Amino acid sequence: MEAVNISAMLARFSEQWAPKKIAELNNYDVKIVKVQGEFTWHTHADTDELFFVIDGALTIQLRDGDVVLGPGELFVVPKGAEHCPRADAEAAIMLIEPRGVVNTGDVGGDLTAEVETLS
Amino acid sequence: MEAVNISAMLARFSEQWAPKKIAELNNYDVKIVKVQGEFTWHTHADTDELFFVIDGALTIQLRDGDVVLGPGELFVVPKGAEHCPRADAEAAIMLIEPRGVVNTGDVGGDLTAEVETLS
Repeated sequence: MEAVNISAMLARFSEQWAPKKIAELNNYDVKIVKVQGEFTWHTHADTDELFFVIDGALTIQLRDGDVVLGPGELFVVPKGAEHCPRADAEAAIMLIEPRGVVNTGDVGGDLTAEVETLS
Repeated sequence: MEAVNISAMLARFSEQWAPKKIAELNNYDVKIVKVQGEFTWHTHADTDELFFVIDGALTIQLRDGDVVLGPGELFVVPKGAEHCPRADAEAAIMLIEPRGVVNTGDVGGDLTAEVETLS
């Protein structure tokens, strides 16, 4: 049993929009992801989704307005709220949500990613 | 709806071993806590518990050995694993676990704390 160092985990991959699992918390997964550009508008009908910014800046576009996050800031997208993450420069994000949640939610498409586990 | 800035939340209190709720994720709470010294050995029989170090260093003593965490490092104490956090200097920690989990687990005692919500 040892600590999970997020920076070290981030150094192990370069692809964007491809979440990597780094830990489990009951039936939740702790994932990290590198993002740049705009994702796709989507909704998770059954769950909240926690975004925590490790490096860079992330804008979470919501139909009510934008939430802008920097390092050390978090935001929980409420269940059922349509959202679209955007990052002008590459950002590194920690995500926490129930296992099996699909990154593109209800819309699917080419950005849908399998979650690889980093161990 | 706005970002939760963890440093700003930490600046709002000084007491140690008193978790503050800063966000909710479904039926989980996201809490921050300042710690220094040794807590108490205890177990959460029904849930894992995620520790993420914001500032300082935290040692999570387990019966199998210690896990030492610095800033940007996390560890999930498995359900049922007896543990005792310790910090030689003050450290700031983010905790994520199901709502209603008592900080002292099965042992209770004077360190048992109500969770205040920072909003």
